[in-house]
Amino acid sequence: MNKKIEVGVLGATGMVGQSFVKFLEGHPWFELTWAGASDRSAGKKYADATSWRLDGSMPERVAALTVSDCKPGNGAPKLMFSAMDASVATEIERAFAEAGHLVVSNSKNHRMELDVPLLVPEINPDHLQLLAAQKSRGWKGAIATNPNCSTVALTMGLAPLMPFGIQTIIATTMQAISGAGYPGVPSLDILGNVIPFIGGEEAKMEIETQKIMGTFAGDHIQPLPAKMSAHCNRVPVVDGHTVTVSVGLRDKASLAEILAAYQNYTSVPQQRNLPSAPKKPVLYLPEENRPQPRRDAFRENGMCVTVGRLRECPVLDYKFVCLGHNTIRGAAGAAVLNAELMYSEGLLD
Amino acid sequence: MNKKIEVGVLGATGMVGQSFVKFLEGHPWFELTWAGASDRSAGKKYADATSWRLDGSMPERVAALTVSDCKPGNGAPKLMFSAMDASVATEIERAFAEAGHLVVSNSKNHRMELDVPLLVPEINPDHLQLLAAQKSRGWKGAIATNPNCSTVALTMGLAPLMPFGIQTIIATTMQAISGAGYPGVPSLDILGNVIPFIGGEEAKMEIETQKIMGTFAGDHIQPLPAKMSAHCNRVPVVDGHTVTVSVGLRDKASLAEILAAYQNYTSVPQQRNLPSAPKKPVLYLPEENRPQPRRDAFRENGMCVTVGRLRECPVLDYKFVCLGHNTIRGAAGAAVLNAELMYSEGLLD
Amino acid sequence: MNKKIEVGVLGATGMVGQSFVKFLEGHPWFELTWAGASDRSAGKKYADATSWRLDGSMPERVAALTVSDCKPGNGAPKLMFSAMDASVATEIERAFAEAGHLVVSNSKNHRMELDVPLLVPEINPDHLQLLAAQKSRGWKGAIATNPNCSTVALTMGLAPLMPFGIQTIIATTMQAISGAGYPGVPSLDILGNVIPFIGGEEAKMEIETQKIMGTFAGDHIQPLPAKMSAHCNRVPVVDGHTVTVSVGLRDKASLAEILAAYQNYTSVPQQRNLPSAPKKPVLYLPEENRPQPRRDAFRENGMCVTVGRLRECPVLDYKFVCLGHNTIRGAAGAAVLNAELMYSEGLLD
Amino acid sequence: MNKKIEVGVLGATGMVGQSFVKFLEGHPWFELTWAGASDRSAGKKYADATSWRLDGSMPERVAALTVSDCKPGNGAPKLMFSAMDASVATEIERAFAEAGHLVVSNSKNHRMELDVPLLVPEINPDHLQLLAAQKSRGWKGAIATNPNCSTVALTMGLAPLMPFGIQTIIATTMQAISGAGYPGVPSLDILGNVIPFIGGEEAKMEIETQKIMGTFAGDHIQPLPAKMSAHCNRVPVVDGHTVTVSVGLRDKASLAEILAAYQNYTSVPQQRNLPSAPKKPVLYLPEENRPQPRRDAFRENGMCVTVGRLRECPVLDYKFVCLGHNTIRGAAGAAVLNAELMYSEGLLD
Repeated sequence: MNKKIEVGVLGATGMVGQSFVKFLEGHPWFELTWAGASDRSAGKKYADATSWRLDGSMPERVAALTVSDCKPGNGAPKLMFSAMDASVATEIERAFAEAGHLVVSNSKNHRMELDVPLLVPEINPDHLQLLAAQKSRGWKGAIATNPNCSTVALTMGLAPLMPFGIQTIIATTMQAISGAGYPGVPSLDILGNVIPFIGGEEAKMEIETQKIMGTFAGDHIQPLPAKMSAHCNRVPVVDGHTVTVSVGLRDKASLAEILAAYQNYTSVPQQRNLPSAPKKPVLYLPEENRPQPRRDAFRENGMCVTVGRLRECPVLDYKFVCLGHNTIRGAAGAAVLNAELMYSEGLLD
Repeated sequence: MNKKIEVGVLGATGMVGQSFVKFLEGHPWFELTWAGASDRSAGKKYADATSWRLDGSMPERVAALTVSDCKPGNGAPKLMFSAMDASVATEIERAFAEAGHLVVSNSKNHRMELDVPLLVPEINPDHLQLLAAQKSRGWKGAIATNPNCSTVALTMGLAPLMPFGIQTIIATTMQAISGAGYPGVPSLDILGNVIPFIGGEEAKMEIETQKIMGTFAGDHIQPLPAKMSAHCNRVPVVDGHTVTVSVGLRDKASLAEILAAYQNYTSVPQQRNLPSAPKKPVLYLPEENRPQPRRDAFRENGMCVTVGRLRECPVLDYKFVCLGHNTIRGAAGAAVLNAELMYSEGLLD
Repeated sequence: MNKKIEVGVLGATGMVGQSFVKFLEGHPWFELTWAGASDRSAGKKYADATSWRLDGSMPERVAALTVSDCKPGNGAPKLMFSAMDASVATEIERAFAEAGHLVVSNSKNHRMELDVPLLVPEINPDHLQLLAAQKSRGWKGAIATNPNCSTVALTMGLAPLMPFGIQTIIATTMQAISGAGYPGVPSLDILGNVIPFIGGEEAKMEIETQKIMGTFAGDHIQPLPAKMSAHCNRVPVVDGHTVTVSVGLRDKASLAEILAAYQNYTSVPQQRNLPSAPKKPVLYLPEENRPQPRRDAFRENGMCVTVGRLRECPVLDYKFVCLGHNTIRGAAGAAVLNAELMYSEGLLD
Repeated sequence: MNKKIEVGVLGATGMVGQSFVKFLEGHPWFELTWAGASDRSAGKKYADATSWRLDGSMPERVAALTVSDCKPGNGAPKLMFSAMDASVATEIERAFAEAGHLVVSNSKNHRMELDVPLLVPEINPDHLQLLAAQKSRGWKGAIATNPNCSTVALTMGLAPLMPFGIQTIIATTMQAISGAGYPGVPSLDILGNVIPFIGGEEAKMEIETQKIMGTFAGDHIQPLPAKMSAHCNRVPVVDGHTVTVSVGLRDKASLAEILAAYQNYTSVPQQRNLPSAPKKPVLYLPEENRPQPRRDAFRENGMCVTVGRLRECPVLDYKFVCLGHNTIRGAAGAAVLNAELMYSEGLLD
């Protein structure tokens, strides 16, 4: 690749947008040349329009970009990452797709539409075929989405078990505060506390999991017919969603076989050597008390999901703990990996 | 009651022992007159032998007690609470029971012995009948126990559902650091973190729950034949174990019927007006984001279990969140309530 | 006192207002019969207008009150506590004072006005004489104020040293999140972190301390001519502001003399046995590692200031640590104690 | 440099030792080939002798080393970093120095000895000349030390002010839990709390600061005759010691001059381009609420000290906040930078 592909970020000044800016810095294929935000910010330098909330400092090259408003045209690059707030993402993402852009979105708005792929590149790279179905909308471009942050941790943690036929899932999350954005969770609510509720999260986890693990059926995805129940909690952790999972399988398998499935798991992003793909997409930790968010969320640059404590479940078949970095593998990194998968399929040409 | 009943505490200088000291202060029936601890402490004033770790200051009357060593005789009162460490509880508790004491223990050592009741007064007051079976050991006294702190929160949270026939339980705990004693969990392990493992806890929760909900069968308890799976986690919370629960029931019941069962729940300790009994043993909170440990663990002086978020479970029948104060209802308060139940049955005469 | 004195709270639905509601519950002299809030809330039941953020549940009697708008008249009682937000307190408090109410305010707005007393009843009860000077404003009533929460902890911690002539103060605060109200400090800013800045706080501490320790001079307070420097920090603590203090004194005094001054300190509220007065207004803790906010902020119902670690300072004369409960002694409790002082002076007749 | 210099770590299996292992990984000049620990560990593989407590995983090459006992001889390399516990460091470090090793120690034991340099390479590189004075002990080698972690943050934060003549310092620390090692601070003591005491820390800060800023006088260091007072606190932060500082200066200087001194500050390690030297040893942050430990401690790989909030002090001359990473710049990184300075002086030949 002689010249990098220019990319833009919709909603670049917000907290998720900042994660995109940070994650894209130094990317071998993509170069951020366009930052879109609200009318209030448009025309300002990115540095002036943005309260930088992440560790370290704002990348200098991006700081100097002039913020555009979120409308197609005016030199916006074809590949557009969306970090739009849900309150405005529906219309804006559609407008860009209609105008010929490939919108790779982290927003929830289009995830469950029939012809929109909800991608986890290790699990369902074939779902990219759905993009063709979007042609019937009269769009010159298309929209692809990544799942909710807790869903990514769960589905990646379950991915090695898919060959055994996943039939039942009960999952309890312990989610980091960075998942709620900024200002997000008031400290008076979460310091030394647990909040056993995250609005809309349980329904998202249940329905997204079935779609992600479903089957491509021409113009839609046939959801996996697995029963799924989520309990979602917020805990005083900065980064990293931890999930305890009990799972029931169609096929009998020994603990050793299940463990081997985890240890040997690899998939398309690894085989194609995509730049953001973790070497071990699902990293099994043998210690009795891992994974832990503060110690393990950043492994493989936050792009792998760590799993531990695999054991038999007295109710379903097996149980384990999994953990994913919610703002990297669960958001910006997920979208960038989706775009890399699309590039590897020739979809960015 | 004209004169209070004298009581002792075995292991009075440790953290659990301190919880007994604090909880018994001002008790209308019982008066702490005897504090037992290791040889190292025996002979010292309680104030000198104890590093007080709880909020507020040590009760003055107890501060002045001379610590005894943990051997029967020498004026030790009949009713003896045990806060002994598991490493020494087996022999010491037996010695006191043999010598005629009623040992009301918070230690795990004898909980699962066939002829030892594992009491939750709201759930299984009839299990007290097991004490008679201990006669065949040649003991003049007896041992009664309360469950592990996380088991209390779970079983109390499930108690209103027992009439519907509990068949399956999957529970995930988020447990407070005070459950691990002092010095307990190193701050480097838990600050801003989750530890998805507590040694031995899951097995204890699974087996204790079945015994607590079991049936008195003359010389033993027939465990409840329910399948039970626990996932135990430590979270950065000071007091209060939170548990997410999915439960399968034998009898069909509507959500309204289940909710009514929670709202109307009461039991023997309430009917007998035992001094430490909470008015509402299971307090259902209607807010969408409760119970929360920092805000709800201390309700009813830490003696009730709070429940919230009752809803249908896509895998089992219902799911909910419950919360109990681990060092009060889950330890010292549990043992004292057990002793009050025993008194109300005439067992302290 | 046969019949309690009726009182109202301006800004009763906010977080500070809730602290007043909670603190006044069961008060032996005062009964909350009137709750004022914004137009948006007026006419609603207090229970419907208020998101209760404090531990435990809303007092039932208050829950049933109908919220009034914050205008004088309509049966508003004479004694009015103000928990108004600073953005609106200036005009509203004046209107009530003008109309004949005694406004006992926790808001910062009038604290530094020349004829308004800034009261700490243990330190400057004579400053109440300033109320007379407000007559020249044409007001039928008056305004009295209490200091900023961190200033209370500091000045009470310094009070026993006033006889030695305080000349220089350097103080560093570590302030709890509850001091910032709700939603207040975002958890992403403070979890596992220190924020070395609180807007306006250092100036408030410096200037308020000089006024509180100043001398009544007929129609104004002559500030204490002490040099004072504050460093203010936010730390991840729920309740309780901790302050490290180095102090320079005019009079030579030995460490033993200074310590005795702390141990023997008492003042007017104690002598008059005011209902909210702590028995020990400044409680000196001899342990080497106290006071600590989570363990000591609630002593004496949160109304005393705890002090520890008194020792010589190599730069100034002495140094120590002090701690006060910011929402009790630093806000609602401070105002109620002010009103009790006023009652004891016959100012509520 | 064709071949790397072999180095060893005394006390390599402990928490500080692990910091050395991690910090040395990939070092361009030094290669860790020798790990010393207690008799209990000697003979085992490093991986088997060590409970790895740091983020990420143990470097593979080190994991395979066989642990030696801490005695000179047997192929121990000349350059030896010491992470020994204070209880054993005195004798062991002396034995190595006597036998010809250059011991670059993080332990407190020899810091205050007259002929041992207490180095901060930016501040007192000339103190290395003291090593010659150690010859009179009959040693073939020598000992050099780095300061206590909180002292490094303070002295680096003050370094740009040294030309103005530092005369008075009052500092309050808010120190991270990682400074206390493992298991270190019990979570029950620090979660949601402040501990206003760290044993021995204040005396260390006061005396070390004077030595570090002192003048080389042939066979000893003439301490800086500045008055210095420290208040040391532990706060619930993982990494990074924050310090508020008020400072009195001999020479009058405007705020602009002081600010310029910070912005232009550089020193010997930067001029010599030492591999671990931060580009900006003292990084001034202009935002009103920085530095913050969670967001700024890792800047420049944890090797710079960040400073902010420079302003006039009403008592002394100026005040500011500074922050340093306690286990990197305050421990392992400090020692490695000391060794790099020694190499640049030809002392490792």
